[in-house]
Amino acid sequence: LDYQHVQVPFEITLWIMLASLAKIGFHLYNKLPSVVPESCLLIFVGLIMGGIIYGLNDRSPPVMDSDIFFLYLLPPIVLDAGYFMPSRPFFENMGTILLYAVVGTIWNVFGIGFSLYGICQVKAFRLQDVSLLHNLLFGSLIAAVDPVAVLAVFEEIHVNEKLHILVFGESLLNDAVTVVLYKLFRSFCEMPTIKSVDVFAGVGKFFVVGLGGVLVGLSFGFTAAFTTRFTKDIRVIEPLFVFLYSYLSYLTAEMFHLSGIVAIISCAMGMKRYVEANISLKSHTTVKYFMKMWSSVSDTLIFIFLGVSTIGENHEWNWPYICFTVIFCLIWRALGVLVLTFFVNRFHVNTITSKDQFIIAYGGLRGAICFSLVFLLPDFPRKKLFIAATTVVILFTVFVQGMTIRPLVDLLAVKRKRESAPTVGEQIHIRFLDHLLAGIEDISGHWGQYYWKDKLEYFNSKYLQKILLREYDQPKSSIVLLYEKLERKHAIELAEAGQLGHGPTHPSLLHFGFLCSNDRTVRADRKLDDTLSPVVLDNMKEILARNLYRSRRTGPAYNRHTLPGESEPTEHAQEILILRHKSF
Amino acid sequence: LDYQHVQVPFEITLWIMLASLAKIGFHLYNKLPSVVPESCLLIFVGLIMGGIIYGLNDRSPPVMDSDIFFLYLLPPIVLDAGYFMPSRPFFENMGTILLYAVVGTIWNVFGIGFSLYGICQVKAFRLQDVSLLHNLLFGSLIAAVDPVAVLAVFEEIHVNEKLHILVFGESLLNDAVTVVLYKLFRSFCEMPTIKSVDVFAGVGKFFVVGLGGVLVGLSFGFTAAFTTRFTKDIRVIEPLFVFLYSYLSYLTAEMFHLSGIVAIISCAMGMKRYVEANISLKSHTTVKYFMKMWSSVSDTLIFIFLGVSTIGENHEWNWPYICFTVIFCLIWRALGVLVLTFFVNRFHVNTITSKDQFIIAYGGLRGAICFSLVFLLPDFPRKKLFIAATTVVILFTVFVQGMTIRPLVDLLAVKRKRESAPTVGEQIHIRFLDHLLAGIEDISGHWGQYYWKDKLEYFNSKYLQKILLREYDQPKSSIVLLYEKLERKHAIELAEAGQLGHGPTHPSLLHFGFLCSNDRTVRADRKLDDTLSPVVLDNMKEILARNLYRSRRTGPAYNRHTLPGESEPTEHAQEILILRHKSF
Repeated sequence: LDYQHVQVPFEITLWIMLASLAKIGFHLYNKLPSVVPESCLLIFVGLIMGGIIYGLNDRSPPVMDSDIFFLYLLPPIVLDAGYFMPSRPFFENMGTILLYAVVGTIWNVFGIGFSLYGICQVKAFRLQDVSLLHNLLFGSLIAAVDPVAVLAVFEEIHVNEKLHILVFGESLLNDAVTVVLYKLFRSFCEMPTIKSVDVFAGVGKFFVVGLGGVLVGLSFGFTAAFTTRFTKDIRVIEPLFVFLYSYLSYLTAEMFHLSGIVAIISCAMGMKRYVEANISLKSHTTVKYFMKMWSSVSDTLIFIFLGVSTIGENHEWNWPYICFTVIFCLIWRALGVLVLTFFVNRFHVNTITSKDQFIIAYGGLRGAICFSLVFLLPDFPRKKLFIAATTVVILFTVFVQGMTIRPLVDLLAVKRKRESAPTVGEQIHIRFLDHLLAGIEDISGHWGQYYWKDKLEYFNSKYLQKILLREYDQPKSSIVLLYEKLERKHAIELAEAGQLGHGPTHPSLLHFGFLCSNDRTVRADRKLDDTLSPVVLDNMKEILARNLYRSRRTGPAYNRHTLPGESEPTEHAQEILILRHKSF
Repeated sequence: LDYQHVQVPFEITLWIMLASLAKIGFHLYNKLPSVVPESCLLIFVGLIMGGIIYGLNDRSPPVMDSDIFFLYLLPPIVLDAGYFMPSRPFFENMGTILLYAVVGTIWNVFGIGFSLYGICQVKAFRLQDVSLLHNLLFGSLIAAVDPVAVLAVFEEIHVNEKLHILVFGESLLNDAVTVVLYKLFRSFCEMPTIKSVDVFAGVGKFFVVGLGGVLVGLSFGFTAAFTTRFTKDIRVIEPLFVFLYSYLSYLTAEMFHLSGIVAIISCAMGMKRYVEANISLKSHTTVKYFMKMWSSVSDTLIFIFLGVSTIGENHEWNWPYICFTVIFCLIWRALGVLVLTFFVNRFHVNTITSKDQFIIAYGGLRGAICFSLVFLLPDFPRKKLFIAATTVVILFTVFVQGMTIRPLVDLLAVKRKRESAPTVGEQIHIRFLDHLLAGIEDISGHWGQYYWKDKLEYFNSKYLQKILLREYDQPKSSIVLLYEKLERKHAIELAEAGQLGHGPTHPSLLHFGFLCSNDRTVRADRKLDDTLSPVVLDNMKEILARNLYRSRRTGPAYNRHTLPGESEPTEHAQEILILRHKSF
């Protein structure tokens, strides 16, 4: 027996296997996941395993290595989140998201930090050795809402798209703030004196970290898109580039102390559109599937490790400090959301209701990022207290808030996600309004989101598409595509019902189809096809294609465990539609 | 800048990126890959990179770590090979393959070992310190044909399926022999005296290593199939199990000093059929695609590393030893193939022609396995000589034989792979003959392959399918399936040509289709459907389903870089057929 030799890959494989089997196990009992979020169950499994390891070895089980977490477990989840980010709601609410992510996080950090420092001044609590800087450092790591935890809970409760993107977007973009503040306070802790210039450098650094992340991400994203222009002869390695470039963007950002999360999200969002058009359908299925799979496994492992790491002897218990941490986390977040939303609502027509505000505040879950950051702290006497407080906050938010948020959403009757995809009519209206608003903004000289969107779209079709797409072609109008899709779906339905008429020549069949058709839409379409000359039709198509954006399927809100469109009954037809898409 | 922190994943990602970009680069110039095999180009890239590293650092570039090779690079390639193994030709030629793999490899090991020992006795060559045991050890590592190298060359020359499977199967199955002999001679080298009991133990060990590998592989394979029964609710992690279980089978086999290659191949071949039936179509696409991608990357990395590792100072040059190694490798392989084929041809009707024999002998390429094994040797004075000789043999076989085999195949007019898939008629005949032969074998009391195949099929449908498949159902007859496929293909073609008739009620459409059809087959089919009552039809289907094996698409011979059916023009139809397959 030669276990040493294969130990590393063997144990990694076994952990992943355990995680996957645990997932299957939960889903075998359908009732369980509908009551308890999966993240709670996984932490619970982790706790049990940690207990077993602790009991057997009589020493603390290994804690989750922060390096492993940040280098291997986090990127797949963030990549998945970025790639499947519904871009329209994201950009529409960009301002609000950034406000929550930047101002909100800073508010929380200082609020929690200062008020905990206040608690430390109470002599009875015996915490006077915890300095203000240490409290702020602790605040910087505990304040940030965790994307992994938020995703795990929010994808199960199906709130409306705007609410979802507000909480989720915040949890992703606050990474830049967290990175800056955490590193700032850490270095302050090690400095003998702090000059005011350091503080200003910190503020400047925030912009560098955030915008630098975006830049790194976009450049890798566009390189990825450009690379996939040349993969036509070796389809099989196409999916690889999506993963390689986004991972490189993350690592590069981390290397330069920029925000890796922001980088990988920009990379994914930047390349998605072009990569999708360049690679084959099967490659794209593989990319999507593997992203989902990978992020699902990462997320499972993170929660299990979180549970395992909780058990052990690296905690120092101090009732007042830990209780007040939980309370302050809740209070400051609630206050922050209230104040910021007050300003947001003054500038927006589409306001955030008080119910939504409650869910945003209540959905501020903490997770593995805090946990990894607290273990990365340099050693100082109260580190174990911080670890204990962080663990309690995470478990409290994930278990108490995570388990009660679903009943609360039901109770408050928060607006839910719409189940059906928008109809063609709606899509046309939305696009029409976009153009109209862009025109109005242009005329009135107001550089709003529609103006920029229009400019970006122009720049995209004028330059980017020509460089990044293999076969650059004016995209077909989505109406034409939809018509083709209906035709194809219809054909398959007929074939499946065994009712396929065999082909007479073109015009006669059209008439025949027209005559015996019971379906009004198809008849109208046929009539159109029949009565208009091909030239007129082509003209119409061209006008439509030139004047409408290319339709992107605006899928339902993000969900880690299913691929968009997976559960739709018309899957066959869609499959073929996409195939057809490619073949043009 | 914090490079240390991200070094490991960053460098791995960069290496993979380099490999993938090199692959794209070759394919941009279409002429190059058609003359020079990709493996040669990759080694060449590796040589250049090694030269650059050597020039810059003034010390040998790092050699490929044997652990990395055996634990991370080899398994994906073997898994891919096993999963896409065309099982019919493999099992039909099992006897011959095993003869080549076992007896042939032993023949080569001892042939090369003893004759090199003879060379060492020539005083002028100054090699008298190389003992017989060391020569045999060297023989054991240099004798084995390498699956990676064979695949890389044979998938580009498209020889007939039987020839391909003979060389490829041998290269896979000789692993058990290589493992045993290599470890045997290695331990003999370290023993003071060798008893005859050790030699017999070695012979016994061969069976343990080989059959143990098969057992480990099959048990993991069946567990994998069993696990995928329960993944219906979480489709997204289905592909994971295929990879996890096969990797575990490899690692477990390695842990117990069994043949990992044999284990992973048995695992892949054992689970394929059931996993395919259990998992969703998209999961299956992902599995196939990712396997191809992974093996393609592994294989690229192996050849690049092979090139990089060649440069450096770990060689000891000795003209006679190295030249004679190359010559003996060629001679003993040629002799072995001649002798073994002589016996094979005496017992088979379908003989191996002398052209085929030449290609089998000439296709005995050596590759990275030898290279890794020679670096794993314990340190002794002549290790560097062995490394040099191994490197030369590999480069000679890959470059000279690899580049000339294609012209030779053309010149000798070796029978090529048939391009088209077998027709329905052929498939029915083949299956009919299988049953007939099984019956004949049963009556005559001869337990031949058909007899065993029949028994296995019985056992499979009686027990295995019931345990391993989620929705166990008597499989549909392939004729019924084919009919449905044609229908669907036809429907899509009509829809694409815009000629879809719209649905009248069932009987009238059938008549209409029948009347205006020009296509005889479809007409005949329709007539059948029309004239026979549903009960009679169902009866027919049931009889067909019960009495014919389920048709497996017998794809064209193995090719690493394309998925079966990828290039077929009727892709749409196939896609739908498979969808349909699932929906039953």
